[in-house]
Amino acid sequence: MTVSTLSNTRMVRIEWGDCDPAGIIYYPNYFAIFDASTAMLFEVALGMTKLAMFKRLEFAGWPLVRTQARFIKPTRFGDDVTVESKITFGRSSFDIEHKLSLKGELCAECSEKRVWTVRDAQGALKSHPVPQAVLEKFRA
Amino acid sequence: MTVSTLSNTRMVRIEWGDCDPAGIIYYPNYFAIFDASTAMLFEVALGMTKLAMFKRLEFAGWPLVRTQARFIKPTRFGDDVTVESKITFGRSSFDIEHKLSLKGELCAECSEKRVWTVRDAQGALKSHPVPQAVLEKFRA
Amino acid sequence: MTVSTLSNTRMVRIEWGDCDPAGIIYYPNYFAIFDASTAMLFEVALGMTKLAMFKRLEFAGWPLVRTQARFIKPTRFGDDVTVESKITFGRSSFDIEHKLSLKGELCAECSEKRVWTVRDAQGALKSHPVPQAVLEKFRA
Amino acid sequence: MTVSTLSNTRMVRIEWGDCDPAGIIYYPNYFAIFDASTAMLFEVALGMTKLAMFKRLEFAGWPLVRTQARFIKPTRFGDDVTVESKITFGRSSFDIEHKLSLKGELCAECSEKRVWTVRDAQGALKSHPVPQAVLEKFRA
Repeated sequence: MTVSTLSNTRMVRIEWGDCDPAGIIYYPNYFAIFDASTAMLFEVALGMTKLAMFKRLEFAGWPLVRTQARFIKPTRFGDDVTVESKITFGRSSFDIEHKLSLKGELCAECSEKRVWTVRDAQGALKSHPVPQAVLEKFRA
Repeated sequence: MTVSTLSNTRMVRIEWGDCDPAGIIYYPNYFAIFDASTAMLFEVALGMTKLAMFKRLEFAGWPLVRTQARFIKPTRFGDDVTVESKITFGRSSFDIEHKLSLKGELCAECSEKRVWTVRDAQGALKSHPVPQAVLEKFRA
Repeated sequence: MTVSTLSNTRMVRIEWGDCDPAGIIYYPNYFAIFDASTAMLFEVALGMTKLAMFKRLEFAGWPLVRTQARFIKPTRFGDDVTVESKITFGRSSFDIEHKLSLKGELCAECSEKRVWTVRDAQGALKSHPVPQAVLEKFRA
Repeated sequence: MTVSTLSNTRMVRIEWGDCDPAGIIYYPNYFAIFDASTAMLFEVALGMTKLAMFKRLEFAGWPLVRTQARFIKPTRFGDDVTVESKITFGRSSFDIEHKLSLKGELCAECSEKRVWTVRDAQGALKSHPVPQAVLEKFRA
């Protein structure tokens, strides 16, 4: 296990349409926020969007193997929350920890295990070691 | 303009997660319901899913050109609404009318104009006449 | 811990709009499917929708405390999956296990811990023992 | 009809999870973007979030009466689009025009008609003239 020191923090507005009849965020939308935060962490480290990653890298996606989340305090429409995302690389997989806070108070946290994939000769997805060029960008 | 007589009616449950803090459906979710209703209309007529259409027909999708909707009466989580969808074919396009009702009362209606597409030699989408085999299934 | 023997199985169509550019389900949508499956389990047991529960029971929602999920095999638009949901009651909380399968093959599984809540005098949510009348319906 | 000169422009990132198996935005998500753009237009004009509007103004929401949209050019995950929103007030309703562009090129446009509502003595929504204090903020 190589521990990366890189993390990324971004701000996300919780929208009216993210919330449910209880007036608080509908929790499946947290996973969309976390998924986009994973993409943004790579975008910041690599200097390219996920779309560019597909074109320029040995990369065919990072399917999620498992995730778990804890919901501590609800958030509401109009809240500008911060999401801090930290990555730890394995060989062909990586773990991400997301912490979502409002005004410095932790509201939700989530961990993800994802696999780095490429396409085999038949076009099917298979796991593949994370390219060195990617790892180096995270170490920089 | 060839007028098709085919229509399809399906039932859809409005879920808690489809609703917003006003306790009623968040209207962008109506468009997802209408989009799925268009796919179901074709599935019923052709006897194959949209996934099978991609594999077996000259077909690369039916991008939406324009849509309009009118919202008459809100629906709530737990409501089992009916969606009636009617199609009218043009040459390379088609129009769909959706009527969403609760207990016989019209709650929303929507019209869509979509284009039948195939991929050109470069892989780009281009409009294409709706295949005769498709039209015949709707006339049957 | 009282172990309930009640479970519910429902069928869910994976829609085009549930899927992402990889052509497979966008996993946050699984959590919406699981959330609706929890509501349906109660609806089947109690014979009333969640909306009716708010009106007729000491009940103000079942906020999620934590969830974890494992994704084994992707599903695609047009797939009709089955979701089997099992509940185990604690005193003021309950655990749900969801298993999502396609043609008998397990594709994803998820566990949820939720709290039964009521409103206090100030209108705030507080945890509350699951009403006996609810527990009895599940034992029946 | 009073024509307001106020408009607001904001940037929105199209996310992976907003896109469908065609690799382009799933159009119902455009309506969520437009809905949030309407809320942001008011937030900028009034200097308060929609949540604050509920608390401080004669206001119980702005249900959509009708909307129409035209889709000119698809957008993709990683695109940072701009949404320009313009408002025109009627007495108890208002019209919004949204134009969504990528690198200066118009990709989609949408118009909305919404009603200003308050709660009557029974708690039901009813239309109500847009408060003068709100109109003045838009004229400023």
